[in-house]
Amino acid sequence: MEGAVVLRSPCPVACTLDLVGDKWSLLVVRDLLRGNVTFGELQNSPEGIPTNILADRLRRFEEAGLIDKSAYQDHPVRHAYGLTEKGKALSDVLLALVRWGKKHIPGTRTLESPALHSVGRRKPRRKQDRKS
Amino acid sequence: MEGAVVLRSPCPVACTLDLVGDKWSLLVVRDLLRGNVTFGELQNSPEGIPTNILADRLRRFEEAGLIDKSAYQDHPVRHAYGLTEKGKALSDVLLALVRWGKKHIPGTRTLESPALHSVGRRKPRRKQDRKS
Repeated sequence: MEGAVVLRSPCPVACTLDLVGDKWSLLVVRDLLRGNVTFGELQNSPEGIPTNILADRLRRFEEAGLIDKSAYQDHPVRHAYGLTEKGKALSDVLLALVRWGKKHIPGTRTLESPALHSVGRRKPRRKQDRKS
Repeated sequence: MEGAVVLRSPCPVACTLDLVGDKWSLLVVRDLLRGNVTFGELQNSPEGIPTNILADRLRRFEEAGLIDKSAYQDHPVRHAYGLTEKGKALSDVLLALVRWGKKHIPGTRTLESPALHSVGRRKPRRKQDRKS
């Protein structure tokens, strides 16, 4: 469906904001960059993303080619999500936001966790693994 | 009022998005960087920003210290808006969005105009100047 999108202007800023210009999208990208791969893990963001918004963003990101998903469990089906190269490239936008926020908004700090750039899809534990 | 803001998390990305995380805010910053200083000029963005949204963003940006305004005409009062250093520093975020958009969204191109970095508050023409 990517080719069917109508651009509101040819400006690359406007077009990128049409995709990720809201309060949640880039936080989902942040959490995927930090190594969270399952719906449950992504739901545990410190900002408490609402379930319906997370589901919507994952669907839109997949349609836009920012992420892909694969089933890591069959009964019930559970998916792991990972950024594509196109999605990972948004890390430059995130880093610019990190630098601006840390410099200009008192009380902010980088979250303790894998660095933004240490990207790689971690294999989620299967249900039976967790039980053992 | 800047100090009274409640942070939804200490993450600098989340806090910056609370300020400019929507489809319009960074376009207003873009247009201020491009040398548009009056309400009318900012309203003429290629994306056709709605008047109420533009007024809301200018008010919020002024409260957050991203812009300041000065009257350039008294009857009726007309204001010129300009980015503060804090506001101008968002150009790094915009440049990251420009680079990502141009690379990953077909059909985008940089708008013809003063470069993003040639920032400076242009003096708007007074009404009587325009009449002459």
